Amino acid sequence: AEVQKKITPWKLDIQEQEPELQLIPHQRAARMGKTHGALLVVASLIDKPTNLGLCRTCEIFGASALVLDSLRHVNDKQFQALSVTSERWLPLLEVKPLELTDFLQLKKSDGYCIVGVEQTANSHSLESYHFPKKTLLLLNEREGIPANLLQMLDVCVEIPQQGVIRSLNVHVSAALLIWEYTR
Amino acid sequence: AEVQKKITPWKLDIQEQEPELQLIPHQRAARMGKTHGALLVVASLIDKPTNLGLCRTCEIFGASALVLDSLRHVNDKQFQALSVTSERWLPLLEVKPLELTDFLQLKKSDGYCIVGVEQTANSHSLESYHFPKKTLLLLNEREGIPANLLQMLDVCVEIPQQGVIRSLNVHVSAALLIWEYTR
Repeated sequence: AEVQKKITPWKLDIQEQEPELQLIPHQRAARMGKTHGALLVVASLIDKPTNLGLCRTCEIFGASALVLDSLRHVNDKQFQALSVTSERWLPLLEVKPLELTDFLQLKKSDGYCIVGVEQTANSHSLESYHFPKKTLLLLNEREGIPANLLQMLDVCVEIPQQGVIRSLNVHVSAALLIWEYTR
Repeated sequence: AEVQKKITPWKLDIQEQEPELQLIPHQRAARMGKTHGALLVVASLIDKPTNLGLCRTCEIFGASALVLDSLRHVNDKQFQALSVTSERWLPLLEVKPLELTDFLQLKKSDGYCIVGVEQTANSHSLESYHFPKKTLLLLNEREGIPANLLQMLDVCVEIPQQGVIRSLNVHVSAALLIWEYTR
């Protein structure tokens, strides 16, 4: 009988997966007089491929990795047009939506603060929130983060808005949080 | 002979064009304890319709108006999907690229500070730049603002970046500037 050890790639450190990719952002950040952070952007709940132009934004602001529901997106023409080769410079991880509970739990025990963008009674305003170095940003499209994941969040951040329209596009919200993280 | 007075709509005040639209943002801003600004976002040089989801972002952050190369975009299905009805609550103006010189000149004489997103030797970093109340944000896709318009800018703002990829998507850059304007 064939005995095969099942490897769950996201249980490895990013360092173990892609040691050479991990080096680059640190050097670039140092050159700019910044400490490279540990911002993990989780986009597994994003279902519109047009919003994965997020890859470009993550790379530009030095996120440590982008988590997708599937690495097959990388072969998609539209993804490639939007990411303008940023996927070559940014570590990508695959975590399917059903694996998110385990993934978030692992990252919590690794010291990450799990942040969601949600308007709740206890949300912190993005204007004044100070992100911890180890931040995992859990993104969601449309009607909020599912209840089982919502209870795993350490912090909800909300973006003050004055419009009639109630929520920003997910790529735009993510960009604003990533920008504030790097400040 | 028929004598007809030519009306150039963008030579009117926004107030004159859409008095009822103009009221709403002021009231909403006041409710949030903010002064509603006079941020005019000029997207006439944007040629990818997917980037006009910008309309949603402008409405949400209370821009005073969005300027497009053509108001026909509003009838486009893709525009409608991205704008999620925000175009009903945000004054839109039509200024064709060839009319931009005149338009910027008019706004300058009306006291607007013309701001572009460009990396130049004299650019201000977005991290520390303080926007004047009357700001006109001139956006551009791809390879920068054309030379004839570049010389009309009062200020260039740049977004500090640490990535290999050199520029953000125009909707994302615009969102970051609009966000900083409202802070």
